Amino acid sequence: MSWWLSACKVPSENAKQQAEARQLQLTKPTGSLSELERTAVLLATLQDTAQPSIERPWICIFAGDHGVMEENISAYPQAVTRQMLQNFTSGGACISVIAKEYNANLQVIDCGSVGEAYDYAGVERHCIMQGTANFAHQAAMTEEQCEQAMQLGYLSAEKAFATQASIYVAGEMGIGNTCSASAVACFLLNESAEKLTGVGTGIRAEQLAHKKHVIDQALALHQEYVQQDAFKALAAVGGLEIAAMTGAYIRCAQLGLPIVVDGFISTVSALVAVRLNPQVREWMLFGHQSAEYGHRRLLEELQAEPLLKLNLRLGEGSGAGAALGLIKLACSLHNNMATFAEAAVIGDKV
Amino acid sequence: MSWWLSACKVPSENAKQQAEARQLQLTKPTGSLSELERTAVLLATLQDTAQPSIERPWICIFAGDHGVMEENISAYPQAVTRQMLQNFTSGGACISVIAKEYNANLQVIDCGSVGEAYDYAGVERHCIMQGTANFAHQAAMTEEQCEQAMQLGYLSAEKAFATQASIYVAGEMGIGNTCSASAVACFLLNESAEKLTGVGTGIRAEQLAHKKHVIDQALALHQEYVQQDAFKALAAVGGLEIAAMTGAYIRCAQLGLPIVVDGFISTVSALVAVRLNPQVREWMLFGHQSAEYGHRRLLEELQAEPLLKLNLRLGEGSGAGAALGLIKLACSLHNNMATFAEAAVIGDKV
Repeated sequence: MSWWLSACKVPSENAKQQAEARQLQLTKPTGSLSELERTAVLLATLQDTAQPSIERPWICIFAGDHGVMEENISAYPQAVTRQMLQNFTSGGACISVIAKEYNANLQVIDCGSVGEAYDYAGVERHCIMQGTANFAHQAAMTEEQCEQAMQLGYLSAEKAFATQASIYVAGEMGIGNTCSASAVACFLLNESAEKLTGVGTGIRAEQLAHKKHVIDQALALHQEYVQQDAFKALAAVGGLEIAAMTGAYIRCAQLGLPIVVDGFISTVSALVAVRLNPQVREWMLFGHQSAEYGHRRLLEELQAEPLLKLNLRLGEGSGAGAALGLIKLACSLHNNMATFAEAAVIGDKV
Repeated sequence: MSWWLSACKVPSENAKQQAEARQLQLTKPTGSLSELERTAVLLATLQDTAQPSIERPWICIFAGDHGVMEENISAYPQAVTRQMLQNFTSGGACISVIAKEYNANLQVIDCGSVGEAYDYAGVERHCIMQGTANFAHQAAMTEEQCEQAMQLGYLSAEKAFATQASIYVAGEMGIGNTCSASAVACFLLNESAEKLTGVGTGIRAEQLAHKKHVIDQALALHQEYVQQDAFKALAAVGGLEIAAMTGAYIRCAQLGLPIVVDGFISTVSALVAVRLNPQVREWMLFGHQSAEYGHRRLLEELQAEPLLKLNLRLGEGSGAGAALGLIKLACSLHNNMATFAEAAVIGDKV
């Protein structure tokens, strides 16, 4: 049996009830903190504690290149994937600034980028393959390669858990990866490219039409192999970093580590994870709704309502990272507001 | 001439252009940080600096009671206004926790609550009147009382500016004040109560219908006096804390101190401020869209798109306070992300 089919940890019903009861006693009109209340209660439930906190967030960026770049589907050149790896660890990328802001550990894993061997400080280099194969012509990964990529996510979750991380954010870097993510989403939702393909980092209208065409052709090519199998969809048209995030999410849920899902690509990984192991869903918070077309549809499928809607479309886990501030605040309010009794404030309605 | 008609500071076009140029050079797809980019650029423009920051936010809570409480229009008893004053300064209220989280100075001003004289540590007590008069029968405030309340806001903005605050949040506390705020909004937008009245802290359907009836009757009663005059609307059906926030916003804009507007009641104050002095609008950021019915309509009138939409309906400046975290992050990203040149990342599209 594949490791990802194993049961997830069961969230604490007891902690949930206690957290809900506390929220009713805090000095505010009943329910008036809405999403912030729900966030605090959910985190208390998942962390099995009366005092939820995200003192030690773990952020892991998974990078990978995409063979489908041969089809001219992206606004930026493939070399950017590698260039950004150094930017993550040297502190100049968006997610690097966010990690510093929220005192997070930032792990950077190259699952398979295109180019010569290298040694960048702080980057964990793996080379399952030098970028996926071009799924316009063949499977992006073999099933073995896809499992290897998922394993990188598994190990990242294990490492985060071992260092007592309080919450886990997965992000991605891979020029061309909205194309792969859209293709996977099409298989999972049984839709054509039209419904789930957007401009990514910013392609123009004619290039977008071409990108959709490439995806629709690939769906036809791999249909017979994939059938309704989420793992096979991941292998056929996904990406190394997309598979790694899927593995990370599943392992987090098995270990009992709460997850914050990021934007479009991460949500595709999240959906694959939930299809492979439905219990994973309980461990997910959702950071933001991306500007990428199709994200709303994926969120609906997962019955998710993200904390932020800022039209971000950057990737790197940036939307989930930005949401860490609100999650932190939700915890502070839950833990530190006075109760009606403590403050001698009337809590009953007239 | 009334002080609030004096010109506001002119935002820096030079700082704006420099900030926009910098955003284009940061290592991310063009425009991909969307609202966070706009927030950083706006703050750079208002603070006239290349390095926007909110290291020293100033939060001021204005409290006041409402004579219209006699009409049974609120879910909570009037005594809560005073009880919460102590909760603000003792650290147990929502805004107290938020102020601590973002290293803000929290000022608490009682503009006129109902009850005996008191001496609560940290509360600046004024007693323009023991709560407004019941606007169902007479003007809530005389014009002189309304000016006195606006003056309290003026002085708060002066104090914040003198201590080199970087951004100003006004919040309010006053049981019954959504009723007053709705009535003012109706006069400003020339609407009936139906369009701008919500459940406030949580009244039931029949009480909501009654609240609307009370407001519509009051609109008819004060119509002839108010005409189209925003100041007279404020005096006739507003509140001491609503007038104080109006004064604070205007003075902030005159001094050149950026404002974060909170929810429904604060936005009514913001709209009064803009009607009295249109230049004030340029100095406003908007923190959140409240769950209170009518807030969306007010935001549209001000052409405002808030950073957060979390269904909060607590008041106290809590939505604007919660947005401080995102504003802080927007500044950090603007100031600390690497440029394409610094990181040796390709910034041009293919």
